[in-house]
Amino acid sequence: MAEKLHHVVFEPDGRTLRVPEGQTLMEAARAAGIHVESPCGGNGTCGGCRVIIPERAPPPTEVCRRELTGEELARSVRLACQVRVVTDLRVIVPQETGLGDQKILTEGADLPVPLAPNVRKTAVHVPPPSVDDQRADAERLLDALADGGLADLAIDVRVVRDLPDRLRSFDFHPSVVVIGDQVVHLDRATAADACYGMAFDVGTTTLAGYLMDLVTGKVVAVASRANPQTAYGDDVIARIEYCGRVKAGPRTLQALVVGAMGEMVAEACRRASIKPSAVYEAAVVGNTTMNHLLLRLPVDQIARAPFVAASSSAHSVPASEVGLKIHPQGRVYTAPLVAGFVGADTVGVILATGMHEGDRLRMAIDIGTNGEIVLGTRERLLACSTAAGPAFEGARIRYGMRAATGAIDRVDIQAGRVVIHTIDDAPAVGLCGTGLIDAVAALLAAGVVGPTGIMKSGQELERAAPHLARRVSGADGDIAFMLAGKDETGGGHPILLTQRDIREVQLAKGAMAAGVHTLLGEFGATVDDVAEILLAGAFGNFIRPDRALAIGLLPRAPLGKVRFVGNAAGGGARMLLVNRNLRRVADDVARGVEHVELSQRPDFQMRFAEAMLFPGG
Amino acid sequence: MAEKLHHVVFEPDGRTLRVPEGQTLMEAARAAGIHVESPCGGNGTCGGCRVIIPERAPPPTEVCRRELTGEELARSVRLACQVRVVTDLRVIVPQETGLGDQKILTEGADLPVPLAPNVRKTAVHVPPPSVDDQRADAERLLDALADGGLADLAIDVRVVRDLPDRLRSFDFHPSVVVIGDQVVHLDRATAADACYGMAFDVGTTTLAGYLMDLVTGKVVAVASRANPQTAYGDDVIARIEYCGRVKAGPRTLQALVVGAMGEMVAEACRRASIKPSAVYEAAVVGNTTMNHLLLRLPVDQIARAPFVAASSSAHSVPASEVGLKIHPQGRVYTAPLVAGFVGADTVGVILATGMHEGDRLRMAIDIGTNGEIVLGTRERLLACSTAAGPAFEGARIRYGMRAATGAIDRVDIQAGRVVIHTIDDAPAVGLCGTGLIDAVAALLAAGVVGPTGIMKSGQELERAAPHLARRVSGADGDIAFMLAGKDETGGGHPILLTQRDIREVQLAKGAMAAGVHTLLGEFGATVDDVAEILLAGAFGNFIRPDRALAIGLLPRAPLGKVRFVGNAAGGGARMLLVNRNLRRVADDVARGVEHVELSQRPDFQMRFAEAMLFPGG
Repeated sequence: MAEKLHHVVFEPDGRTLRVPEGQTLMEAARAAGIHVESPCGGNGTCGGCRVIIPERAPPPTEVCRRELTGEELARSVRLACQVRVVTDLRVIVPQETGLGDQKILTEGADLPVPLAPNVRKTAVHVPPPSVDDQRADAERLLDALADGGLADLAIDVRVVRDLPDRLRSFDFHPSVVVIGDQVVHLDRATAADACYGMAFDVGTTTLAGYLMDLVTGKVVAVASRANPQTAYGDDVIARIEYCGRVKAGPRTLQALVVGAMGEMVAEACRRASIKPSAVYEAAVVGNTTMNHLLLRLPVDQIARAPFVAASSSAHSVPASEVGLKIHPQGRVYTAPLVAGFVGADTVGVILATGMHEGDRLRMAIDIGTNGEIVLGTRERLLACSTAAGPAFEGARIRYGMRAATGAIDRVDIQAGRVVIHTIDDAPAVGLCGTGLIDAVAALLAAGVVGPTGIMKSGQELERAAPHLARRVSGADGDIAFMLAGKDETGGGHPILLTQRDIREVQLAKGAMAAGVHTLLGEFGATVDDVAEILLAGAFGNFIRPDRALAIGLLPRAPLGKVRFVGNAAGGGARMLLVNRNLRRVADDVARGVEHVELSQRPDFQMRFAEAMLFPGG
Repeated sequence: MAEKLHHVVFEPDGRTLRVPEGQTLMEAARAAGIHVESPCGGNGTCGGCRVIIPERAPPPTEVCRRELTGEELARSVRLACQVRVVTDLRVIVPQETGLGDQKILTEGADLPVPLAPNVRKTAVHVPPPSVDDQRADAERLLDALADGGLADLAIDVRVVRDLPDRLRSFDFHPSVVVIGDQVVHLDRATAADACYGMAFDVGTTTLAGYLMDLVTGKVVAVASRANPQTAYGDDVIARIEYCGRVKAGPRTLQALVVGAMGEMVAEACRRASIKPSAVYEAAVVGNTTMNHLLLRLPVDQIARAPFVAASSSAHSVPASEVGLKIHPQGRVYTAPLVAGFVGADTVGVILATGMHEGDRLRMAIDIGTNGEIVLGTRERLLACSTAAGPAFEGARIRYGMRAATGAIDRVDIQAGRVVIHTIDDAPAVGLCGTGLIDAVAALLAAGVVGPTGIMKSGQELERAAPHLARRVSGADGDIAFMLAGKDETGGGHPILLTQRDIREVQLAKGAMAAGVHTLLGEFGATVDDVAEILLAGAFGNFIRPDRALAIGLLPRAPLGKVRFVGNAAGGGARMLLVNRNLRRVADDVARGVEHVELSQRPDFQMRFAEAMLFPGG
């Protein structure tokens, strides 16, 4: 009894969802990780989730009529929580809450984490000094905070420098910002409620940021960017080599990433109508290299056997120390790393999926430029990192591109004919990660590519699939399949998938699969023992799992075992931002996970070679 | 049964001691707080305590003959530990261990403090990483330190930046410097034993510094300076006003004092033949204003009722934060303050004298530009600060000067004639603090000055004391007494003591005495209840106590109750430098002492007015 699905295209980022009939736009957007403002939580009471439905706008509900102006109703503005999907739709999400020009997953599942942020802001009445009470300003303030339940705090000398002036200009009734056990700032009492933090997932290729209200624990805005370091290398090894080659390299890469992070803060704050100076802490997860580059720690020993980090601990440093533009007295918390290339992003995935507390054997696969795999239960967790490479993020692929307008994001071969879909339905300009997986899966299914990854020539295909045969050009190593011709590219160059591209896919999926099997072997388990496969990553949510299974990117398992968990690494960062107690848990997780160093295992190379074959070989 | 005393003059600073017959020069120097190098502790085994006895040098002992060269013996070089005093002597202490051009007390009694410095340096073998042991460098080092007994340490990001390189260049066998719970530096293992700290007493007028070997706990060199801030005001109020008036004032004053402290480090290190980069921590005591100026904390609220500090806590800041030139990763510890003007110097006095542990009622009087007084037992301690002013340090006195060459440091009137002594027996050029006290005491005793402080005219004195009458000149408010004429000044201007100078002495001693009596009143005790009066301060040791009693600078008490404790504030700094556990004690002391704010007490003004009278009035 299949439910009826409708295609809903979300503008301006062009993502298309198949939405079950009767679901609201808000529910659909949430399920797909598309951020739509919903201050009231989707209850139709705040009117915050405005979207525009330019064609076939449904009649406004009573709530829409109450919350929206006549002018808005006439412009086809509706509330996303009020629109039930009963037909295909195109929906424009107002720009200030949109995702920008790239599909980057910036919101995962809601996190059931108690609110206990490391940053606290509280208004306090400090008794003014008198001849009978000559306590110093700092100790006077600390005593007042202790009376209010915030005991055992300290004030750094740098903060004391402003303290006498501030206490007096606020008439001894300031709003006090505390980070950890440190009083870091005094503000006027009226600003008591403005207290924000930013959670970051710093990926090799993409950056995701979540601006969180630390009083409510809610995400109030998101921002994302390509990691500008990519200009200096597609993967971490290339960037480490760059740092070894060019003296100013580390400084350059650090400035790039922290600059982009600062832009993200500014952008998210603009959307939420707050000042970046109301952001007091950033919580950052990232792999070992991203972590070290951000903190200006040396990276060259990471890339040389035996591949060790300079420091795997969590750090909390002044924002000014790394140059992140939040409140001048703000701090940057970086979550702890596991070992080797397995970093804090993996710790984030574990925290967000609760694998460190689970009884059932589960596997998390985080597909990024490096692929991290975690396997285990609360008793024992194994993790490894594989150099999957940035193929699925568009790099090293002849016509590869990021998931932006004009990217082919879906490829099917139906009745011998190629059917493509592009983001924003725009003329095709390239091929993004999901399109790449789809294309390879389709060519495998159609017999154009064999299990060893060799593409058949036009001649070989002529009889069985004449429509497809015509799309094959070149010969030998240079052979290629045309995914989109002039008609579909608006007269631009045709989009080809080359033999070399397929090799890149084989390398990437082979690395992932070999990692999966090495971990299973180390654990003494088989795929069948795994109760659930959690697919994480900025990119995971957009993959069609059957296609990923078809090319062997995911281990051979029933589709029902596969669950998308969104950007779980970023989810971990959000949890660590809003709950300081979890930071000790993160330390334990980071220390407790057994790191499996793939590169040094004799079985890995063999498994890798095997795993480069496509299923069915 | 009086013991026989000999006069021993120590050059080049000219201090004269009365030394009991048979005492060694080393013992005499120590008892007076004069620093003579004695690496072996005075046992005659190191030959380190070389002094020169230009006239009447005693025959060399066997030890002298063993330790000194023939050339040295011929130059009258002797070992201070070997020379027993049996006659008056002049002794030259080699310049590099001398006190420079000013009498500043830089060494007090030996301190019976267990050695537990906050700075620890230890060589450690770190197991190199391997594929089977991929711990990060930082955690690898911390684990190795924990195995060696130094657990629960942390490493700051800034130190981690150098860590991989240093670990490898030292073949994973570094010498590690730990300050508090922080690993701050890695050095080559051969440098394991070089670990020093510097204790500072930062006074309003004078700075004293003690370079200490943190492995042995011994003072290895001393240095002293006038506080260069005096150019911007004699006392703390004048400096606070300067900071209020001139925007760059706080920066200027901070740079001056920290610059002088850096010079003292350099000078002491030169004497001890070590590099300033082997100094990892400075422990500083100072009054509230000196503390705040050094830490760049605001000072203006200190000078305005109700006179509160910005922070009274101890602080530990990077040396780079305040600009002190020790090891770049070194730290500066500032001891906690009591309240109002009563600062860490008073905490130092209490620690060094053990008043916080004593059962008998004792009083400590620290004579400086501000006079601090502490009264009490382990059960209850009271403290106050009085603006004694810098009169005893030579300022605001017509011919006042610091205790340097040519200063009149002793004045007697014998058989109606004035007998003076000058430092270095040089022609008199001015009058230092001890000379000032002596002069006033002598004039009081001779009846030249009456109990109200009024100086008699030449006419009034003509009959009773014709020799003295001739020394009085001027009339009314402008009247003055000539202490030294042309004969004694080498043809320079005569040295006068004016009526106004006597008023300054009255103000200073009145402030001290009023503080003493206010504390006694607050405690509910009389002078007779006080078991011991501890006289502390850079200057205290050179005072003749009977003269101080004669002018009422000390409370009327038997001379036997008065004990000199030397620069006890500096002693406290030394104790805090070599024993980190004492820092918690200091926190408790600072919090536990009851501060008596004199300026706001109605009884203080009356006591002050009364106390300006001289005894016998």
